[in-house]
Amino acid sequence: MKKLINAVEDVVREQLEGMALAHPDLLKVHFDPNFVYRADAPVKGKVALVSGGGSGHEPMHGGFVGMGMLDAACPGEVFTSPTPDQMYEAAKTVNSGEGVLFIVKNYTGDVLNFETAAELAHADGIAVQSILIDDDVAVKDSLYTAGRRGVGTTVLAEKIVGGAAEAGYSLKQCADLCRKVNQYGRSMGMALTSCTVPAAGKPTFELGEDEMEIGIGIHGEPGRTRMKLKTADEITEILALGIIEDGPYTRTVREWDNEKGEWVDVELTDEPFKPGDQVIAFVNSMGGTPVSELYAVYRKLAQICEAKGLTIVRNLIGPYITSLEMQGCSITLLKTDEEILRFWDAPVKTPGLRWGI
Amino acid sequence: MKKLINAVEDVVREQLEGMALAHPDLLKVHFDPNFVYRADAPVKGKVALVSGGGSGHEPMHGGFVGMGMLDAACPGEVFTSPTPDQMYEAAKTVNSGEGVLFIVKNYTGDVLNFETAAELAHADGIAVQSILIDDDVAVKDSLYTAGRRGVGTTVLAEKIVGGAAEAGYSLKQCADLCRKVNQYGRSMGMALTSCTVPAAGKPTFELGEDEMEIGIGIHGEPGRTRMKLKTADEITEILALGIIEDGPYTRTVREWDNEKGEWVDVELTDEPFKPGDQVIAFVNSMGGTPVSELYAVYRKLAQICEAKGLTIVRNLIGPYITSLEMQGCSITLLKTDEEILRFWDAPVKTPGLRWGI
Repeated sequence: MKKLINAVEDVVREQLEGMALAHPDLLKVHFDPNFVYRADAPVKGKVALVSGGGSGHEPMHGGFVGMGMLDAACPGEVFTSPTPDQMYEAAKTVNSGEGVLFIVKNYTGDVLNFETAAELAHADGIAVQSILIDDDVAVKDSLYTAGRRGVGTTVLAEKIVGGAAEAGYSLKQCADLCRKVNQYGRSMGMALTSCTVPAAGKPTFELGEDEMEIGIGIHGEPGRTRMKLKTADEITEILALGIIEDGPYTRTVREWDNEKGEWVDVELTDEPFKPGDQVIAFVNSMGGTPVSELYAVYRKLAQICEAKGLTIVRNLIGPYITSLEMQGCSITLLKTDEEILRFWDAPVKTPGLRWGI
Repeated sequence: MKKLINAVEDVVREQLEGMALAHPDLLKVHFDPNFVYRADAPVKGKVALVSGGGSGHEPMHGGFVGMGMLDAACPGEVFTSPTPDQMYEAAKTVNSGEGVLFIVKNYTGDVLNFETAAELAHADGIAVQSILIDDDVAVKDSLYTAGRRGVGTTVLAEKIVGGAAEAGYSLKQCADLCRKVNQYGRSMGMALTSCTVPAAGKPTFELGEDEMEIGIGIHGEPGRTRMKLKTADEITEILALGIIEDGPYTRTVREWDNEKGEWVDVELTDEPFKPGDQVIAFVNSMGGTPVSELYAVYRKLAQICEAKGLTIVRNLIGPYITSLEMQGCSITLLKTDEEILRFWDAPVKTPGLRWGI
């Protein structure tokens, strides 16, 4: 196992210590329980956004803590859900009185633990809502998930809803916008190589020298199919068409209703992309693929979008939701409207994403 | 060879096409000869900065074209020097009349070709100066270099001198500042794995499963020593002490004297770091190492700097000068002063580095 780490059991803590040392102007790190939070939290008059999940996907989520994005992020061990006490303590720390929105990627452990945390926060008198991100078109159910997994749209949702919270959106408005962004976003990824979880010490899966995995999850969980390595153009076409030609997606999600103080079932149907849509195109590295190769993917993606009548109005290209040192990429397309574009363009200042300030 | 590419001979062109499609607001790409240049070039009243080198180090240099950084970047084939006609045509395109500064990493091919380009530009009536970056403390001479190689300080120099050019510095002032930044900066890198040049199709070098290379160059050229894999703390200490304990470095560099219209030999001595120095700390991924691991390196680097009496006043952490998908990292420390900090903090808007706008 070749990594820049010390003892396996110290990996997450030491990386968090590094973040705290590097960005004291932006964030602080609380240990036991672990969470990263805005240096100026709680921000008066502002809804607080809290996300989290297993470590190993950096810069998501800790690297997105700061002005215009998250108020707190709860890192679990590598590829392991954080615990309810992390989320609960984070919520208490960053709540300014305007309430807390949990942005939860759809993995069973994350979902369960954020549910417990929402109940704890509610019992404590904190207004809380919780929105699920389930944007991965690759598989219906997977190793760690009932329903679609939460992947690239998470990054875009944290940026866009972060901008809205900064602009004074109420808790309900933030939740509604976050739900819309999730419903407007679709993603699919692929792997050229596996990654190695430090505690495991060996690759999560084996891929032949001439093989790749299409529809991979961000924890190395299996995708749609394993096939012979193809060209960047062919790979991009598989991912892009998987997204663009994905049909309506209907499922029931569980959301915390802050006013009722209970869980409610919400039926959601995401509509397919259609010609004329304006989109944000996000080409993401799984961690080990350099940005140069992402531009080859973007080139083909832009051609496909044009042919399909989709207009790319913004883009994001780089390693933002990663799987340790895995080589590969994912594509996310997010349908936009005036509200989404306004908050995408809003200033942001975090370790992982920064503009306008 | 596992990469997101199409035909090997199209790699650089297609990546450039992707950049042009992704960032039309920031840059344009000229083909035959190839160079990336600011969308709004020439910028009236501003000295133009031109850099370049082999491809495979992205985002450097093309990703640093834009407001507050480079006016043009000339990409060669992967790990291959660009040609004089690229630099000459780029210089003509971005020169506003205030002259052109060439920022040249010290590799024999780059140096020779930028020299020819400087002479061509001068013959054409373009005011030109040329500054060498030679900051790699690992080796005195190397496979492709007489003297020290140009590495991480290049990124910092392009940002800082870019800010100065934007603020109205003259050509001579830009050259003087660039020379100072180079003299104030020192770097050293290491590799956990090799990278694979597309045209070669196999790894540049072989490293055992338990081995690493200390003092590696950004083209995979050998470093100081190959040794058994160590911990992040131990690796960071080797690199940081290599930089901090490096003695005075004296060499003669060749600079184009714009007023005389001829080459002059300039003797330079870089002084070592000393307690009380304020520094910018730059922890760079070689491309395949995820940002999470860089924070483990930063953590130890911050401890070492503190113990040595160096105050880190700014930092940059991420993949900025890479070697394709190589795993590993480099550290650059740059002594700062008021002038350097002012232009480090100045706004920048490029695909690879962006803040303040």
